[in-house]
Amino acid sequence: MTSTSPLNIALIGFGTVGSGVARILSTQAKNIAVRAGREIRISRVVVRDPDKAREFLPAGVEVSTSIDDVIDDPQIQLVAQLIGGIDPAFDYMKRSLAAGKDVVTANKALIYAHGSELFERAAANERTIGFEAAVAGGIPIIGAVTQALTGNQILSLEAILNGTSNFILTRMLDEQHAYADALKEAQRLGYAEADPAMDVDGTDAAQKLAILTQLAFSTPVKLDDFVRQGIDGIELLDLQVAADLGYKIKLLATARLQNKRLEISVQPTLISCDRTIAQIDGADNIVAVHGDAVGNTTFSGAGAGQLPTASAVVADIIDYATGRTAVTFQSILRSSQQEPWPVQPAEELRRRYYLRLTVDDRPHVLADITDVLGRNEISISSVRQDETPETDEAGDGTARLVIMTHTTTEGRLRAADTELSKLACIRGASIRLPIAD
Amino acid sequence: MTSTSPLNIALIGFGTVGSGVARILSTQAKNIAVRAGREIRISRVVVRDPDKAREFLPAGVEVSTSIDDVIDDPQIQLVAQLIGGIDPAFDYMKRSLAAGKDVVTANKALIYAHGSELFERAAANERTIGFEAAVAGGIPIIGAVTQALTGNQILSLEAILNGTSNFILTRMLDEQHAYADALKEAQRLGYAEADPAMDVDGTDAAQKLAILTQLAFSTPVKLDDFVRQGIDGIELLDLQVAADLGYKIKLLATARLQNKRLEISVQPTLISCDRTIAQIDGADNIVAVHGDAVGNTTFSGAGAGQLPTASAVVADIIDYATGRTAVTFQSILRSSQQEPWPVQPAEELRRRYYLRLTVDDRPHVLADITDVLGRNEISISSVRQDETPETDEAGDGTARLVIMTHTTTEGRLRAADTELSKLACIRGASIRLPIAD
Repeated sequence: MTSTSPLNIALIGFGTVGSGVARILSTQAKNIAVRAGREIRISRVVVRDPDKAREFLPAGVEVSTSIDDVIDDPQIQLVAQLIGGIDPAFDYMKRSLAAGKDVVTANKALIYAHGSELFERAAANERTIGFEAAVAGGIPIIGAVTQALTGNQILSLEAILNGTSNFILTRMLDEQHAYADALKEAQRLGYAEADPAMDVDGTDAAQKLAILTQLAFSTPVKLDDFVRQGIDGIELLDLQVAADLGYKIKLLATARLQNKRLEISVQPTLISCDRTIAQIDGADNIVAVHGDAVGNTTFSGAGAGQLPTASAVVADIIDYATGRTAVTFQSILRSSQQEPWPVQPAEELRRRYYLRLTVDDRPHVLADITDVLGRNEISISSVRQDETPETDEAGDGTARLVIMTHTTTEGRLRAADTELSKLACIRGASIRLPIAD
Repeated sequence: MTSTSPLNIALIGFGTVGSGVARILSTQAKNIAVRAGREIRISRVVVRDPDKAREFLPAGVEVSTSIDDVIDDPQIQLVAQLIGGIDPAFDYMKRSLAAGKDVVTANKALIYAHGSELFERAAANERTIGFEAAVAGGIPIIGAVTQALTGNQILSLEAILNGTSNFILTRMLDEQHAYADALKEAQRLGYAEADPAMDVDGTDAAQKLAILTQLAFSTPVKLDDFVRQGIDGIELLDLQVAADLGYKIKLLATARLQNKRLEISVQPTLISCDRTIAQIDGADNIVAVHGDAVGNTTFSGAGAGQLPTASAVVADIIDYATGRTAVTFQSILRSSQQEPWPVQPAEELRRRYYLRLTVDDRPHVLADITDVLGRNEISISSVRQDETPETDEAGDGTARLVIMTHTTTEGRLRAADTELSKLACIRGASIRLPIAD
């Protein structure tokens, strides 16, 4: 499959990731040519503003403002689709595949939303899609799941897939910051967008986990299938109490086979401090895979960022140049034909839970609450009510009550939530988090 | 490259790993056939004793006692070479390749000692060798280095590659055991061989690191190129003092580009407790890769064991069945043609050091020792001499002195060692370990 003729590629988008790809292809040109078996040449770049100065853009590259120039260029075999969002990226990918070009992309939202249609179109056109960069750029997890672990029935994936949330949770605890302050810091440092909703509400992590779930369990899932909860309700107090009890709170994305059903959730979760996954701080990501043969195998690294993401795109480009992508993509297409697992209804998820309630600081409150839990068959493991919560800024006659339950179901907790919300003693925001020991 | 005809393979050896491979191929047969694009069939097994009962051996498999039966069987395309040691494994692999058969193997010692010759023979016969299982079975590190990270100049590998040593060091600290007791426990639990020399003296880890160094830095290295030190001189006291200072001691295998030279060492090393690599306990392995684009990316999992190793062998078998190995192996062969890096002479390695000296408990000893260090331009960062060392069983008028140095060279330390050994106040065993902050 090797060739002495160069591989001509087009970059759609020359922003953070696109310029990172150009930078790597330029600085590592010699090594990459050896590993790929041929020279890799950026022959065209599509951008919105052709007059902007662009670092790392090789001399002689055609700069276009229209995808048509790529579609119509018969020299271009591979299109690196490096713009975000669905529109116009979806259209560009469909047109590239229809024009007989293979595609690599870092666009997670697009692969999540339209991956199966794009894969079908690629198959129909005998083309391929490489998408290692779409999930956890600095961690080669798609390759691990689709190649290295293919002898395994994967039993679970547990992952931190959103660097923004992990950064915010880390800073809150380390710096004793409130959520809002840590978010502002993340925005100032470029870890969070001006509109951080998709990161902090769990959407981004759920989209990534959905992509991995398709590959690891041959099961297509959508956001509605998830028990999904963001980090925006977490208070510093929760992180502190959890730490006292030996836990870190992480936005944990989990897909797990349990009794022949697939449990999937993205929730802030208490994780024992001694587990590796609890020790991943800042903007880093981690994916812990449990396979029936390999046991636990764990991958961690940068979740995003220019060069880590570009590193994954370049690996896909090299894989394409060698001919390896053609093989891998066929294998992915075949696996997607396998019988999917049924998704466990949310109500049947079984975990221990952490509850933090803001309650009136008066007699009989604890009795009222534990009565609700008891009637819902939720057994209590521990209760903690500090006289003066460290972060009680209000001084409004309320107290913070933390209850840890024994193993129970999401359904029972939801029923209890409804009853608790009707109690007169419950004031302000409460939070409920699962515990992963 | 896919085909509807089954792939016929032979297993050479049906011990721990061989029966694990048969077990996975049997229990995951359906999934594996989908991923591989064809059925994978064990058509022949070569063993020493054909009458031994063998679990997981599929019905109808031919059991031979001679490799000739495999060599002469034109139906067999792929030979899984799953016996350890050099002889007769080397001969079997050469004959398999000469007979036009491809090979996968878990034999680390063989790939270390004769990999380049075997690779050349494979190339000459247009055959391939898969060897993911040869290094850290439960961690797909060979795939990561040769495929996922090919856009990077790898700058360093830091790894725990010997599960036996890691288990012993973990148990010593956790259970307050002496080295000899922890070794006995490792042997009782099957983590260490009756003759543990290759594990505890660093040979095993160095062989594995040499294989990774070839792949990551295109530089062939042999055991003599390493600064190599085993764990057998480590006392419980060292682990305890290190812990007090915020370090774990791990048998760390390091290959690092520094000033365009390759530093390679396998030594018990003090590692800051907050680093992920320090938190890998028991028989697990870890490989932390630093690449110029990807940054830090870390892989951890089981280092050995029946099913983790077999998982890697099966992944190689599936890669072969799909045609991916042919591509990857060509890429590995091309990379091996690249210019090697010069190896840094041991004397020029620059690190901080931990020194533990057993000295006479009398005046002027510290002055004598610090005078030697000072004259060798070794600057001291901290000194610790406890009145009653926790593990001083001897009560023989000696004291344990722990000195932490600032950054200096291995050469200066070696010169100081020579002088220190001549001092009358030095008694019994001393130890010197590098520090990796």
